[in-house]
Amino acid sequence: MNKKQGKQSIIFGAPPIITSTANIVGPMEGEGLLAGYFDQVMADNLNNQDSWEKCESYMLEWAIRKAVAKENSTIATVDYVLAGDLLNQLMATHFALRSLGRPFLGLYGACSTLAEGMLLGAVLLDGGFANKVAVAVSSHHDTAERQYRFPTELGVQRPPVSQWTVTGAAAVVLAYAGSGPRITAATVGKIIDMGIKDPNAMGPAMAPAAVDTLWQHIQDTGRQPAYYDLIVTGDLGVVGKTLVIQLMQEKGLDISQNYEDCGCMIYREDQDAHAGASGCASSGVVFTGYLYQMMLARKLQKILLIGTGSLHSPTSYQQKESIPCIAHAVAVEI
Amino acid sequence: MNKKQGKQSIIFGAPPIITSTANIVGPMEGEGLLAGYFDQVMADNLNNQDSWEKCESYMLEWAIRKAVAKENSTIATVDYVLAGDLLNQLMATHFALRSLGRPFLGLYGACSTLAEGMLLGAVLLDGGFANKVAVAVSSHHDTAERQYRFPTELGVQRPPVSQWTVTGAAAVVLAYAGSGPRITAATVGKIIDMGIKDPNAMGPAMAPAAVDTLWQHIQDTGRQPAYYDLIVTGDLGVVGKTLVIQLMQEKGLDISQNYEDCGCMIYREDQDAHAGASGCASSGVVFTGYLYQMMLARKLQKILLIGTGSLHSPTSYQQKESIPCIAHAVAVEI
Repeated sequence: MNKKQGKQSIIFGAPPIITSTANIVGPMEGEGLLAGYFDQVMADNLNNQDSWEKCESYMLEWAIRKAVAKENSTIATVDYVLAGDLLNQLMATHFALRSLGRPFLGLYGACSTLAEGMLLGAVLLDGGFANKVAVAVSSHHDTAERQYRFPTELGVQRPPVSQWTVTGAAAVVLAYAGSGPRITAATVGKIIDMGIKDPNAMGPAMAPAAVDTLWQHIQDTGRQPAYYDLIVTGDLGVVGKTLVIQLMQEKGLDISQNYEDCGCMIYREDQDAHAGASGCASSGVVFTGYLYQMMLARKLQKILLIGTGSLHSPTSYQQKESIPCIAHAVAVEI
Repeated sequence: MNKKQGKQSIIFGAPPIITSTANIVGPMEGEGLLAGYFDQVMADNLNNQDSWEKCESYMLEWAIRKAVAKENSTIATVDYVLAGDLLNQLMATHFALRSLGRPFLGLYGACSTLAEGMLLGAVLLDGGFANKVAVAVSSHHDTAERQYRFPTELGVQRPPVSQWTVTGAAAVVLAYAGSGPRITAATVGKIIDMGIKDPNAMGPAMAPAAVDTLWQHIQDTGRQPAYYDLIVTGDLGVVGKTLVIQLMQEKGLDISQNYEDCGCMIYREDQDAHAGASGCASSGVVFTGYLYQMMLARKLQKILLIGTGSLHSPTSYQQKESIPCIAHAVAVEI
């Protein structure tokens, strides 16, 4: 066990390379702050599909095929696909994977799934089990709203703390050889539950999990926050982001200068997204678009991506349970 | 990439050891064919919990703690827990994991989750990322019925092809050192969808996926079916099991003498389970109980466990979609 470091972290021996990324988003995301960093912007949230669920599947398949095409290879060269989404029984993922015909491992980490998949993909590569792995995630505003909250058509007013589920899908190709940023380390999260029961307040619920994983990453690897050009969480939104800075401050660490949250980077303030973005695609489209481009341009060289997942279900909410949360971190360096 | 063999298989360099297993079941399972091979039989399906969901969580946590206790170690020595269940957003798993405080990776492979977890756990161990991994799964008849089909209280008549979801949880401890059967090889499945749309007919829907993975395992590893004392699928039931034998026959291979299905091994015929057992706990409690004991007694020395998953959701069924299926295989030898 020479690659485990400290209590929860991994240092990769031959850090796997992120050779390609791709993403696709809905119109609202396409009009947001990161317009110009997406491979495809759909004209509407159905994109000529029969249902929002089929649209989400379409996006996931499109992102995987695009990421592979961008590195001039074929889907047949992908040893494993690791993927997941927010829908019950990973419906978007399973229908998308039908036509790909590749060995598949399903993951559920809610909005932390991209980080979980990158971590396990890097394990498969660094462990000598694969040459190439594709990791993909999706979320869709309308499929998520009707599953987790209220039917979109009902027009229920959203509280200010609520976030807007990103309509989009993202894929990364990880390989043993090639060029691009490398996954050098990772920290696997524990489930943290601080007793928050409001499923609209996912950012505040997830913040302690993000802090727990970041703190453990620092302890395990000895990398202080300043080691990274950017520490970036998945989808905490404005409220959760502020909490993370405060909680780290209480631990004596100031991350206010090099910390951001993907959920605060997608929508313009006038887009009525309230506390920010959420969903698997929040960290998905920000990492595969803006952040990956910044790394290729060497404007960012060391990133710690902390995927954050709120692991509640509609049933657990109805049964008045609190919200278990998790955060997984991957260090990406070029 | 020296550990991948053929198109979809892995040959482990230092095969990880299954040092301990544990399981817990409901009363119906406890009165079935494998009575005597369970660590704990609950008096009823609630077990003093407020809800069936909480009972399922209780079982999952109990199984993990018991498996660790049986090998005289503590939960703190477990580097990672890999787990999943059938409930939306893995509710049983996430609530169970709250109190364990261990690094956690959530998996969704429906009833193939035990095999998927054993495969990925073995990857973490053989790749040098861990010394010890716990893998756990659960299912519960009543939580599954009300989520996937009808409320239990409604008393809807079940068709003969339908299977009975096992109430139970199972855990295995995988380690780098120790004694016990070893995971020598694995085959990662692809999603196979033959167009079956009836969620009562999961066995027939999953059979082609099991055959696809078994066939690929043979091609990749060169191990003919006779290499194994037993090839055992997860939860195909009587109908699915017959189909697997037929489909292999069509490929020119007779597996009728050394093939069984966990779904046909749990309930007595007079227990009204119709086509057999299903659920994550089907292969879970059979493998961790009867099969593991048979291996320790050297009555079985080479097993190919093929976890089978029906990846439909209630939403996909309502949207008239067919059922995507998957099967993952792990070879266990002593």
